[in-house]
Amino acid sequence: MLPDRSFFDRLADAAKAETIPRFRTGACVTNKLEGGFDPVTEADQSAEAAIRALIESAYPEHGILGEEHGNVGLDREHVWVIDPIDGTRAFISGLPVWGTLIGLYRNGEAIMGLMDQPFTGERYFADGERSVYRGPDGEKVLRTRDCGGLSDAVLFTTSPHLYAGKIKERFEALQSKVRLFRYGCDCYAFALLAAGHVDLVIECGLKPYDVGGLIPLIEQAGGIITDWQGGPAEWGGEIIAAGSSEVHAQALETLRGR
Amino acid sequence: MLPDRSFFDRLADAAKAETIPRFRTGACVTNKLEGGFDPVTEADQSAEAAIRALIESAYPEHGILGEEHGNVGLDREHVWVIDPIDGTRAFISGLPVWGTLIGLYRNGEAIMGLMDQPFTGERYFADGERSVYRGPDGEKVLRTRDCGGLSDAVLFTTSPHLYAGKIKERFEALQSKVRLFRYGCDCYAFALLAAGHVDLVIECGLKPYDVGGLIPLIEQAGGIITDWQGGPAEWGGEIIAAGSSEVHAQALETLRGR
Repeated sequence: MLPDRSFFDRLADAAKAETIPRFRTGACVTNKLEGGFDPVTEADQSAEAAIRALIESAYPEHGILGEEHGNVGLDREHVWVIDPIDGTRAFISGLPVWGTLIGLYRNGEAIMGLMDQPFTGERYFADGERSVYRGPDGEKVLRTRDCGGLSDAVLFTTSPHLYAGKIKERFEALQSKVRLFRYGCDCYAFALLAAGHVDLVIECGLKPYDVGGLIPLIEQAGGIITDWQGGPAEWGGEIIAAGSSEVHAQALETLRGR
Repeated sequence: MLPDRSFFDRLADAAKAETIPRFRTGACVTNKLEGGFDPVTEADQSAEAAIRALIESAYPEHGILGEEHGNVGLDREHVWVIDPIDGTRAFISGLPVWGTLIGLYRNGEAIMGLMDQPFTGERYFADGERSVYRGPDGEKVLRTRDCGGLSDAVLFTTSPHLYAGKIKERFEALQSKVRLFRYGCDCYAFALLAAGHVDLVIECGLKPYDVGGLIPLIEQAGGIITDWQGGPAEWGGEIIAAGSSEVHAQALETLRGR
């Protein structure tokens, strides 16, 4: 039997208990280099350990792909894909746009997913059929929006400095065609897309755990998420998410360099 | 008599009543161009009107400099400096890093200030002597941090695309010297600096209302905020805020192009 919302909530709550006490602790990031107290690495590792313990107890037959503690049983029917803190640079800076990402794959396809931002109290969850949001402004079923075309789109990407070479040229060509672009949001931008606030999220060099928990949120809200060739997003790489198929197709044309 | 915290709270609450109902309404930004419903402009204008009405009633002898509804009595001893929504692009995108900024100047010097982020429930207030924070993680007196030097600094700026010419060269020279930089936070980055989470915020082309409410927050938390020549920040322009005098001096040296 597949897990339900309350099981995902338990996972997110267990992660929150490890992340929030270490968020905005004021420790200087340089301590990381000096081998001293490093709140973000501690939070990352202990949050993933807490999530894995609950999964291993409830679903010992499932595999796990995690950022911090390695992979187990990736060839099994069900595999959990975990990023305890997506957006460690935001976490370090005190900026509440990082998130805990938890996805569930069946035969390589992302079918359920969660993004939790515990400081703002926002939780995005895709149950296999629909995406729902709970936050300070209430609870609702999510729908992506169709802004009509590239020239009306709001685009997010984490940083323009992550792109290089051909990839950079194509990203910049796309950026020049949209109505508004913004940098610096990691997973939070994908959640905003699922909720119908923005139209395009473009990233490069993602790992499976950077995107696995987000795919169901976007697809089950009516959006599209693929790699830049239009193939599956489940294994990361260059990723595009769009609120509608028309905007996705237009963006893909530019990203493919036609 | 100068206003107290409860008066600033009334101003922030009045603004919140106008902004929050229009945040994340899902209306497409393109409506603005079509002359239809435009939630951000509506929120901006009605929040400033609400703030001004309270000020005019309680302090009719004070001047007001506002983004949306013009200036009154800028030569008076006390002048209020208001930006109802700093970060309209964040507001449009559903990203809770915009803020309501309210500053009070006496003879041209910013002496009290407030930054409110009503979605996350964070309120930063400088009462003339100290900066205090209230938010989901409690209440505290703010202190900026001293990271020791530029090479250990976390730097924020709204967008690298706002710089041009000489200004751009100098900004990029500074950016290349810091440990970590991030884009896209408007007033929220200054609040993070006041709270000791980041070390440098650099901006260009600011208006007085973009910075007036933030100056006391930073100074009364122990930080420094000036223009790029080391002069007063009260009238905007190219602005630098730093958590310590050493980091400020090092950054200024680069920004002055010596």
